Amino acid sequence: MDDSAAALDRTFHALADPNRRAILALVRNQRCAVGEIATSLGLSQQIVSHHLKVLRAAGLVTGARSGTRHLFAVRVEGLAVGKGFFDDFWPERLSALKRAVESSVGGGRD
Amino acid sequence: MDDSAAALDRTFHALADPNRRAILALVRNQRCAVGEIATSLGLSQQIVSHHLKVLRAAGLVTGARSGTRHLFAVRVEGLAVGKGFFDDFWPERLSALKRAVESSVGGGRD
Repeated sequence: MDDSAAALDRTFHALADPNRRAILALVRNQRCAVGEIATSLGLSQQIVSHHLKVLRAAGLVTGARSGTRHLFAVRVEGLAVGKGFFDDFWPERLSALKRAVESSVGGGRD
Repeated sequence: MDDSAAALDRTFHALADPNRRAILALVRNQRCAVGEIATSLGLSQQIVSHHLKVLRAAGLVTGARSGTRHLFAVRVEGLAVGKGFFDDFWPERLSALKRAVESSVGGGRD
């Protein structure tokens, strides 16, 4: 399996969990400490640490020290791996079909 | 867990496997029988049937009889579930940052 296939495996595996998606949504717009994530989501710090480990292994979050705190943030290059799969994969003929349907709906309205 | 969270779980779980992504790529533009998929990918029919079961449970492929054959095709509504996650999730501030970087690169060429 090449690197990009392994990266997609890790990305999709990491995203296949509602708590991990909730953590990503939390750290999307602001950096958060483990304790803040745990409180926000009503999870134990131990569970949050486990999920962060999976998300980091998939390259979806980064962690960095800020003074005495360890803060986590979304890693956009990691998200781009999953987004790129759908952008590349989207069937061209289906996009064409969608455009044709939209255009025929638009035409009905005159 | 609500229905959409469960659908995302199933979608990402199904996509976290290189053989299942290869099957999706095969049935994206043309309908295929299990045997054709197995031959194309060098897998046993048993393994392909297992992967198709996971893909169908996730709503990513459909199967239908065509005469005496059973043909599988990609299901675009299923793909849209995963694509929608990235479209909704993409951090607005990061898009803005990307635009700013691209615009400054463009400006440098002038």
